[in-house]
Amino acid sequence: MLEQFHVKEEDAVRVRENDLRTTVTNVFEKMNVSTGDARLAADALVTADLRGVESHGVSNMLRAYVAGYNSGEINPNPNWRIVRQTAATANIDSDGGLGIIIGPKSMEIAIEKARNVGVGMVTISNGRHMGMASYHAMMALKHDMIGISMTGCPPSVLPTFGAETRVGTNPIAVAAPAKDEPPFVYDAATSVVAGNKIGLASRLGVDLAPGWVADEDGTPLMDPVPIPPGWTPGMPRNNPLLPLGSTRESGSHKGYGLACVVDILSGILSGTGFGMVPGRPNFSHFVGAYSIEAFTEVDTFKSLMDDFLRSLRNTPPAPGHDRVVYAGLPEAETFQDRSVNGIPLHKEVVQWFQDICNEMSIPYILS
Amino acid sequence: MLEQFHVKEEDAVRVRENDLRTTVTNVFEKMNVSTGDARLAADALVTADLRGVESHGVSNMLRAYVAGYNSGEINPNPNWRIVRQTAATANIDSDGGLGIIIGPKSMEIAIEKARNVGVGMVTISNGRHMGMASYHAMMALKHDMIGISMTGCPPSVLPTFGAETRVGTNPIAVAAPAKDEPPFVYDAATSVVAGNKIGLASRLGVDLAPGWVADEDGTPLMDPVPIPPGWTPGMPRNNPLLPLGSTRESGSHKGYGLACVVDILSGILSGTGFGMVPGRPNFSHFVGAYSIEAFTEVDTFKSLMDDFLRSLRNTPPAPGHDRVVYAGLPEAETFQDRSVNGIPLHKEVVQWFQDICNEMSIPYILS
Repeated sequence: MLEQFHVKEEDAVRVRENDLRTTVTNVFEKMNVSTGDARLAADALVTADLRGVESHGVSNMLRAYVAGYNSGEINPNPNWRIVRQTAATANIDSDGGLGIIIGPKSMEIAIEKARNVGVGMVTISNGRHMGMASYHAMMALKHDMIGISMTGCPPSVLPTFGAETRVGTNPIAVAAPAKDEPPFVYDAATSVVAGNKIGLASRLGVDLAPGWVADEDGTPLMDPVPIPPGWTPGMPRNNPLLPLGSTRESGSHKGYGLACVVDILSGILSGTGFGMVPGRPNFSHFVGAYSIEAFTEVDTFKSLMDDFLRSLRNTPPAPGHDRVVYAGLPEAETFQDRSVNGIPLHKEVVQWFQDICNEMSIPYILS
Repeated sequence: MLEQFHVKEEDAVRVRENDLRTTVTNVFEKMNVSTGDARLAADALVTADLRGVESHGVSNMLRAYVAGYNSGEINPNPNWRIVRQTAATANIDSDGGLGIIIGPKSMEIAIEKARNVGVGMVTISNGRHMGMASYHAMMALKHDMIGISMTGCPPSVLPTFGAETRVGTNPIAVAAPAKDEPPFVYDAATSVVAGNKIGLASRLGVDLAPGWVADEDGTPLMDPVPIPPGWTPGMPRNNPLLPLGSTRESGSHKGYGLACVVDILSGILSGTGFGMVPGRPNFSHFVGAYSIEAFTEVDTFKSLMDDFLRSLRNTPPAPGHDRVVYAGLPEAETFQDRSVNGIPLHKEVVQWFQDICNEMSIPYILS
């Protein structure tokens, strides 16, 4: 099902990872972002594409970020700072810096604190889009830590029984290392479907599935519906998104509640706000790291993870299905393929790169 | 919808909170639990009933705990100990102690660590049933902290596309204080429905709703079905539970993934195991506390919480619904009512108390 959001090969041009990195870095530099920060941003976007998380890769996000820099909504040279901290915590004001740049810097702080006292938890206010949430969580892996990240977004999702959006898609990501198995990497919106997935579905001509959105009055739509015209990814004008669970009977209060948890741990714990004001471009983030050796032997943990993950992927499949996976496994497989064979970009996206490279006087090297 | 699981008034006897506390404490003492621990256990169970979380109150759980003590599965006098710790973390071996007794003690440790270094995170191995997960998380509230708790349970839930259960219902609870509003208290299984809810539904004659369970071969049942005979709460023999989201199309990989997160943070991070072995009575827990003042001013946080929670409860309702609530609000209202008017117990449950008090030579004072 993840694959339904992958660009079809016949519509795609495969581009080399390094060429894409170079091009994206150049675009960020043209936005007056420093070279180091531009490389960081390119790594976040290209990693999403390598892992098959196209909803948060270059095709959906880069043009939105360019628009954000051009409008002044995103600060290319933020004076981000730690507002308050303890041995295990920090609260960072990111001064309008893009989340895919400030997130990794905050995560480094969390990792350092976890190294010192076992865990590090960092809340980040006045942020901008965080990209693929698991990018930040995955930074913990090479340090033998469990990483967590979440982000409070502007409202696009209904509370259970509500007629107006009150929470964002507010994703949660958790990454945990294994020994021989690809790491466990959970990354999911607390809505049934991420806002960006709708944008992709729109490009791919896929219908909205039952339980993804509600009618204008808040009634869940439980039959497939074509994507309404004028849909803006992440900020639906007409059809609000439903929280994970879709209806109260099937648990939408759980998705709604988890979205609230994200708003509390990111925005409210930072002392600044929450996602409720429609149209506000302000995102809040939360990143954290748990040092495994603060709890148990790293080797024991990783062996148990291998056992656990194999037991999951070896589950006998239900009729009509080929196999059972765990979070992070299909993404690791896609990463393997795309690292070698290149990243498939929709022809429209390649055209956009040609145009923007031309416009910005960047050498076009993608095809 | 929570109310559909409340016992009907015509089937109920209202008992006084203090009488129920005394009786439950006496029952635990007859199980060779110390008076202090017995009071702690009674508080956890009666608090669940006061809050209307009857699935985790005396009616479902007490007889299961008595059976567990009698069979030797639960240790009445556990020699629980901290296996490893850092300034912000601890790993506890609970030596087969009941989770509603060891959980609060572990949470005290987490709170103390949070007071010292900002956050405290504790994993607990070799545990037994944790009761209502939010009981532990809510302990943080009076310390101006955010509390979290989760518990890895024996498998009863299918992975997405799987034909055999591999994860437990693995609930997550998060509690955060407000100023004038009742606190936010999230507490939910990562399955569509908690195993214990099925037991309650069985007692109340409620059908299983679409998307709650799968067929024996793993195919999600998307129409209402009567409760199958012989259903054991939490350990379905025939119809496995579905993860939150019900089907892949409507996000079951998210509920499944969150269940895995709980297994990782509770069982695997404790270095001992995970929920996968069917029939194993071993639960693993995770509790944590975030000191608000480690991140921001407590007063600012609480005021923002009031704004946030009011904004949620003031959401205009969709057609056919009276109001929008937030997690913890209905439970706070039920608590108000039951603290004053008594706790309604099903006549069957009152009969059980009469029988067990008689059997154990405990004075019967409930009706």
